Parts: sequence; C-alpha cells; structure tokens
Amino acid sequence: MRTIGAVTFPEFELLDLYGPLEMFGLLSDDFKINIVGAHRPSEVSAQGPKTVVDDIFDDNYAYDILLVPGGRGTRTAINDDVFIDWLASSINRSQYVAVVCTGTSLVARTGLLDGHKATTNKAAFQWVADQGPNVDWQNKARWVHSGKFFTSSGVSAGIDMSLALIAHILGLDKAEEAAKWAEYDWHRDPDWDPFAKVHGLV
Amino acid sequence: MRTIGAVTFPEFELLDLYGPLEMFGLLSDDFKINIVGAHRPSEVSAQGPKTVVDDIFDDNYAYDILLVPGGRGTRTAINDDVFIDWLASSINRSQYVAVVCTGTSLVARTGLLDGHKATTNKAAFQWVADQGPNVDWQNKARWVHSGKFFTSSGVSAGIDMSLALIAHILGLDKAEEAAKWAEYDWHRDPDWDPFAKVHGLV
Repeated sequence: MRTIGAVTFPEFELLDLYGPLEMFGLLSDDFKINIVGAHRPSEVSAQGPKTVVDDIFDDNYAYDILLVPGGRGTRTAINDDVFIDWLASSINRSQYVAVVCTGTSLVARTGLLDGHKATTNKAAFQWVADQGPNVDWQNKARWVHSGKFFTSSGVSAGIDMSLALIAHILGLDKAEEAAKWAEYDWHRDPDWDPFAKVHGLV
Repeated sequence: MRTIGAVTFPEFELLDLYGPLEMFGLLSDDFKINIVGAHRPSEVSAQGPKTVVDDIFDDNYAYDILLVPGGRGTRTAINDDVFIDWLASSINRSQYVAVVCTGTSLVARTGLLDGHKATTNKAAFQWVADQGPNVDWQNKARWVHSGKFFTSSGVSAGIDMSLALIAHILGLDKAEEAAKWAEYDWHRDPDWDPFAKVHGLV
C-alpha cells in the first residue's frame, strides 16, 4: 500500500487533483489518498467546490507519491515562501512527484526540477517556464517522466500521466484495469499533444 | 448564470462528479456550482476524499441543472426512500438532469426516466437496467440526450456528456472553449463507445 499526498492550496484546479485521484482511488488495494492543505477543515478550488483537508502541511508527513495540481491559485502560491519550502522538503521525502498543469511552476520554483525534462499547461507555458529557467522544458508532450518526476500538460493530461505512473510502479495491466473501469480512452503515447499546436508552441 | 446542484451521497464516484464540474466550472460566468448532500459538513467519496456540502437536501433548493454521479454508494442509496423521493422532486424542479455512470440507477428508480432513451456504465449495465424496466436502455452510447435528461456511460464519459450539455445550452463554441482550456480530447460523437464491446454488450 502506497500513500498519496494530494496537495491543495486556494484556487487549485479541480480536475488536476481529482482526475489522477480517481485513477489511484480505483486501485484501493494499492493506494491510500490523503488530502494535504495549509489548514483544516477544507480548501477551496478554483471552480468553487471545497475539499476536506486530511493532513496539514505542519504535520510534515512523508508520502510515497506527492500529487501537485495547478490552477490559477499557483499565481499566489508561487510567492508563498513557507509553502514553497514545505513543497521542497515534501518532494525530498517522496518517492515520486506527480505534477499536473501549472503545478509545475511550484515544483520548478523549489529548484528541485533543475536539469530535468518537464512539461506543463500549453496555454500558460511561458509563465511556467519562467519560474524554472534551468528546467529542460518540453513544449510538445502529454507528459514527461524524468527521475522521480512525472509532469503533465494541462488539466485532463493529469489523468494520462497518472496512468503512466501507475504502469511504471505496478505494471501496465493495473493501469489498463483502472482506465477500463473508468471507461477512459487513455492516451498511452506521451508524445501525443495536439494542444502544443493549438496554443502555438510548435 | 445557471445553478448546478451537484448531488453527493456516501461513496459517490469521485470523477463522476468532478469531471463535469471542471467543465462547468471553467465557464464561471455561466454556471455556479453547489454541492448538495444529506448533511453538513461533508460527504465521503468511494475513493476516500471528502467534499464539503454547500446545500443540504432539506433546503429543497431548485437548480437549473441537477448533476447525479454514480459509484458503489448507489447500491445503498437506491434503497433509501427519503433520498429517492428528494431526487424525484429535485428532478421535477430542474431544467436539465445530467447523470453519470451508475447514477442512472437512482434516476431510473424515481420512475421519471420511464419512456426515455438512456445509457449507463457498461460494466454494471444489467444491474442498472433492472432498476428501470420501462426505460429505453441504450447498450452502446457514450451519452444519450432525451428530453431534460443527459445520461452518460461510465465515469470519464461524464466529461463528454457535460460538454454536450454545455453545447446544447450555450452553443458549440463554449463547449470547445472549455475542452481546449482543459486540454481535453472531447469525444464529440455520442455513438463512440468502445467499452460496450469491452464489456460484452455488443
């Protein structure tokens, strides 16, 4: 059983968090989900719904997998030094770090992504890239795996990335099982990225 | 501005709710999301994370769109007469009813889906169909629109269905805008359904 620390902050993007959590959650014998936030009882998403916080940052628990969403709240969180310091120490305690959409900006800001290949939301690509000038940014990729980091393109790409992470850890059959159960048309090719063109990056 | 009443019950399926809510939530000038449940402060999903309840059933508010998820909790909710009665009156108060996955079992049990074409999760098809013998069940469909009802296949199909509902209400451009922003590969064809074959229904 592996633990997942699903990070929240004010105005996180709803599907960035819950898309991957659905896939991990379908494999309940393999993964246990913990919602992590600055404070109890809850944190508010960019879309309005609020999620209950299980663990607070000050608990400083170690998680096998740290899941970092994006969303417009990243524009505030990136200037929160206490949060970025916590994120850096949590990344160091985790075996894997799964990052969705503009969440990559926060991970890049820790400096721990330096030298790694990574991708992010294609509509906000330059802003995110500016937060980590020493990251090897990939402007056309559904997701990228480098070391302990799995970074994905925008919002729904997190679902494809989380299935790739499940396949990496538990084998392809487990990922296929989750995708089939969710009736999800998994994009298995990390280079599939029509949105790079849509947003003028290629 | 249209209101969405997103229904919760113990062990609802996470992505059934949050996939559509991401799409509606991206169009924040057009839709306002309210999480509805039996009790405050929160309801627990099948995957573990808990969502904060904004409105309780006893408030008996009217919503323009009622969103009904599935999940293993439907097996209990379907025998809860108080809940089914509330659902029936809420459906009657709503302009549209968006139903995901096995959530169709609950809507079918109200009797209000009788005579309508509808679909549901392909892995639990027969059990759901048994809850509404007078529904015109479609065993191969990503989603089905009939009258005020938009019913979808399993879990991730709710995202495709919610985009179809957005297109129906606000026009195709708005749906395309939401899908593009979420970097989502929208299945625009309601007849696209490879999972009907996967689960031996065709």
